[in-house]
Amino acid sequence: MDWKSEIESAAARIKGHVVQTPVMRSDALWDRDIELKLEHLQHTGSFKARGAFNTLTALDVPAGGVVAASGGNHGAAVAFAASRLGHRARIFVPEIAGPSKIALIERTGADLTVVPGEYADALALAQRYEAEQGAMQVHAYDAPHTVAGQGTVLREWEAQGLEADTLLIAVGGGGLIAGALAWAQGARKIVAVEPMSCCALAKALEAGEPVDVPVSGVAANALGARRIGSICFDLARQKETKVALVPDGAILQAQMALWQSHRVLVEPAGACALAALQWGAYVPDPGERVAVLLCGGNIAPDPLG
Amino acid sequence: MDWKSEIESAAARIKGHVVQTPVMRSDALWDRDIELKLEHLQHTGSFKARGAFNTLTALDVPAGGVVAASGGNHGAAVAFAASRLGHRARIFVPEIAGPSKIALIERTGADLTVVPGEYADALALAQRYEAEQGAMQVHAYDAPHTVAGQGTVLREWEAQGLEADTLLIAVGGGGLIAGALAWAQGARKIVAVEPMSCCALAKALEAGEPVDVPVSGVAANALGARRIGSICFDLARQKETKVALVPDGAILQAQMALWQSHRVLVEPAGACALAALQWGAYVPDPGERVAVLLCGGNIAPDPLG
Repeated sequence: MDWKSEIESAAARIKGHVVQTPVMRSDALWDRDIELKLEHLQHTGSFKARGAFNTLTALDVPAGGVVAASGGNHGAAVAFAASRLGHRARIFVPEIAGPSKIALIERTGADLTVVPGEYADALALAQRYEAEQGAMQVHAYDAPHTVAGQGTVLREWEAQGLEADTLLIAVGGGGLIAGALAWAQGARKIVAVEPMSCCALAKALEAGEPVDVPVSGVAANALGARRIGSICFDLARQKETKVALVPDGAILQAQMALWQSHRVLVEPAGACALAALQWGAYVPDPGERVAVLLCGGNIAPDPLG
Repeated sequence: MDWKSEIESAAARIKGHVVQTPVMRSDALWDRDIELKLEHLQHTGSFKARGAFNTLTALDVPAGGVVAASGGNHGAAVAFAASRLGHRARIFVPEIAGPSKIALIERTGADLTVVPGEYADALALAQRYEAEQGAMQVHAYDAPHTVAGQGTVLREWEAQGLEADTLLIAVGGGGLIAGALAWAQGARKIVAVEPMSCCALAKALEAGEPVDVPVSGVAANALGARRIGSICFDLARQKETKVALVPDGAILQAQMALWQSHRVLVEPAGACALAALQWGAYVPDPGERVAVLLCGGNIAPDPLG
């Protein structure tokens, strides 16, 4: 697959539909300066809007509309993109998404089904709906258009003057980091960061293939994929991607540090990559310039709720 | 006063001490695209860090250290700047600052006195402390170094590619808008936005001179100056600055819109300028390009408290 050209096409298609999210530098979060991309300020509060818009603008959407299963962020993104583009949307969300992400989806006007259980349970129902209704399934992470859409984050960041040698990116199902690996093509080092309590990529690399993993912890509703996507797995193995694992406590501390130092408020998943640096799960060489992607901002409880 | 050169000097002095705050464009907050500057992501959550660093780097700080009176944001900024530059700081804060701003100041390690009453009461105590202890007073808004420091916001925004014809800026004591007027020198239209419940600039322009006004409402702990600063008043009269007044309800709606559309979380004062646009207190001409400065992010209660 010619990923560079797929991501270029995605960027052209989604231009005007997504926010060019801001970047900043901080000297208050770690020993040295770090670059941050505030992708949590994207429409619906996460990078997921990119993959959703790319999929819905690249493909013909049937009269049955679109369907997605989601821990919350992907569902909100698909619902938002469908609404802006004039399509029907049905979103299946597991209970663990929580009331604040569920409210976010409701605001888009999409049809919503809350499913007892976790992400995989919602996905099963979404697949049945797809078959029965002739709706188009938008996969949360393991589809080329989704990955190409997420890849536009790094393309955009580079155009904004990214200097870092190394990027830290949180991994759930792997759509975001797959997009980054696909765009970077080895030109920068990309470190995958996962919570110890849901680490589908680490376990897959260990096993030599995607395997089911247990899912729990503070970031589970965003990073709690039961199995890593195969696109991500293949790219990560090819590029010999290093995985840094962080405990929940470190994620919450990083979330607090972003808020207290910069009034940047992210959900736990959004602070996961920073936690690897602050907690020492990834230790850069002296002189290695580091950047952290803040990927999601849909915290619970809603601070203005 | 050669404000342009004062602001250039300020920018050179505070470089490396303050955050170059990010900018973004939104199509989700108003009928047309607007440019935003996320100055609430500044150190200590508001633009006030600029004036504080400029004052403390421009002047010789005596052994008695620095003292400031503040509704919260200025005090936190002075305390932070003093701590980074190795000076003692004593901050007088009125009770209405609230626990979350008080905690912010405490984190800097400054000596803190919480004063019953409002900003003017804290100022009186700070002035006594200044006289008795030989400390240097850093005025929250009505001093040239403070104004020149705040003026660096607009200088920086222009370097980041600001396109707007018109800027909307919230006004409390007037330090921020004075800095913007001083930098712009009429090259862009600058609209002052005040809550109806504390509108020191509007009342001063009406009266032909600064007058005392009542202070209340949701943004009072940031915008509740009893009297507009004379530097601001003179510049606003000279430039025939238009004031837009907004009710508290519109401020809270704008705050909610920023959060729901972009996961940008600001305190009510930080949403005040946007409220003028959304509520229609300021109605731009067709084709007039508009930008909004988000000035403060220290909300209460603390969402991670």
